Amino acid sequence: MSDTQMFERVAIIGIGLIGSSLARVLRRDELAGEIVACARRAETRDKALALGIADRATEDAAEAVAGADLVVLATPLSAYAGIAATIAPALRPGAIVTDVGSVKQVVIRDVLPQLPAGVRLVPGHPVAGTEHSGPESGFAELFVDRWCILTPPPATDPAAVATITALWEKAGMRVVVMEAEHHDKVLAVTSHLPHLIAYTIVGTATDLEETLKSEVIKFSASGFRDFTRIAASDPVMWRDIFLNNREAVLEILQRFSEDLSALQRAIRWGEGDKLEELFTRTRAIRRSIIEARQA
Amino acid sequence: MSDTQMFERVAIIGIGLIGSSLARVLRRDELAGEIVACARRAETRDKALALGIADRATEDAAEAVAGADLVVLATPLSAYAGIAATIAPALRPGAIVTDVGSVKQVVIRDVLPQLPAGVRLVPGHPVAGTEHSGPESGFAELFVDRWCILTPPPATDPAAVATITALWEKAGMRVVVMEAEHHDKVLAVTSHLPHLIAYTIVGTATDLEETLKSEVIKFSASGFRDFTRIAASDPVMWRDIFLNNREAVLEILQRFSEDLSALQRAIRWGEGDKLEELFTRTRAIRRSIIEARQA
Repeated sequence: MSDTQMFERVAIIGIGLIGSSLARVLRRDELAGEIVACARRAETRDKALALGIADRATEDAAEAVAGADLVVLATPLSAYAGIAATIAPALRPGAIVTDVGSVKQVVIRDVLPQLPAGVRLVPGHPVAGTEHSGPESGFAELFVDRWCILTPPPATDPAAVATITALWEKAGMRVVVMEAEHHDKVLAVTSHLPHLIAYTIVGTATDLEETLKSEVIKFSASGFRDFTRIAASDPVMWRDIFLNNREAVLEILQRFSEDLSALQRAIRWGEGDKLEELFTRTRAIRRSIIEARQA
Repeated sequence: MSDTQMFERVAIIGIGLIGSSLARVLRRDELAGEIVACARRAETRDKALALGIADRATEDAAEAVAGADLVVLATPLSAYAGIAATIAPALRPGAIVTDVGSVKQVVIRDVLPQLPAGVRLVPGHPVAGTEHSGPESGFAELFVDRWCILTPPPATDPAAVATITALWEKAGMRVVVMEAEHHDKVLAVTSHLPHLIAYTIVGTATDLEETLKSEVIKFSASGFRDFTRIAASDPVMWRDIFLNNREAVLEILQRFSEDLSALQRAIRWGEGDKLEELFTRTRAIRRSIIEARQA
């Protein structure tokens, strides 16, 4: 056992961009005695083994978690309930279960009730990512200087929270704790709505007649391109985010639509003052982000 | 006169990000015998002189263009008509007038009818920029490998078009010629709508209650941040773009709103298939952009 080891055996269920990046951190810092990857597709398992980021790979989630002191759920959210049912009987007493999903109330709803007593759930959201998917897209530095939000339910063992905090700090993240409901509301604004808008605008462009579409691609650097990067994110992951954070997304989307209608009206009626006033106000937010060193 | 000189005297009306970047190219490649900057504000004129990107600076547009063989309009679009009226009597016969605005039909509407016979108008749009404004924000490399779109009216002297083409090619741009109306339609999709959406979403976020707003800034890296950069662009310039490309912007905005409503409905009713189908389709556009080497 190395000096740095935190876990005897870590099971990572779903070894895509985030799961494989975490596996690389575990490897680099020798945090785990053994890393077991669980993936449905044989191709993914083979890649994980070939990349050297897992010691074993299996498609059976129960087999993956057997004897693990840390279990990381890193699949799309819609798989959580089924996985929780599968692994519950196989979980080792005292094991910590965490996840990396972008919606947090769903974990408490779908996973927590199924876990046996003595297993500790610490829902987590490392706020990091790229538009690429799959184990080959991961890299250990993905998490550096980014935020990780943990949303442990009220009665969670503080030692388990401390362990997961330490893990993400090893990955280079700044860790904060908040309530799951609040997390889902904040992320609906900062992440889910922007992705929805980006998907929509790129979708609108794909429906244009072919000649116009090819020119949109040619001249995409004038603003459109930034949206296409976001709109290239994993389709299933994002489908699940919207389905599982429906209320918060619809609430902020409604506000956005009202604001857009107001702007549309200002353009139609040539109300330049209203446009200029808004465009001046939005500049200030950019400055705040630069000051918060998030730019 | 240097070997490389293309113009005896270049007047740049409006010496902001684009105007000053072009001035830097003229200087670097010794393309102009003299560069005259015109700006309303004394502070801007002083900066242009201090930066060494203008030989003379004046607030009088007629004075600026006197004796110039090239006049570049680089102000917000709403100033075009007034400037054209002011400079018309002072323009040297044979002079070329060009501009760098993001809407092109407006140039033909507001500038062309006012120009004396023998002066040649070549409307242009170097599709390049940053979210920063002012002469200090410019840099000569801004244009490298970007597109420049020229929209000369049907009867334009081909020699004038060739001269402006050569100028932007010196700046490193790839130059294409198209009809002004078509330009405005394409840019409404690639640039104007994305900016409008970004302004809206950042505006929606600024209206949130203070605690939520500060967290939106903190966690902005999850998607929102990309929009704030776009929404930090020059307010007056963008006001004028929307007011002057109203029809094309409202048309594409209408399509966008319909598509967004459809997505909203899919989220509300839990129609995961529809979401996944769209999100898969938008990925393909990103690949096209990467293949077109615009990413």
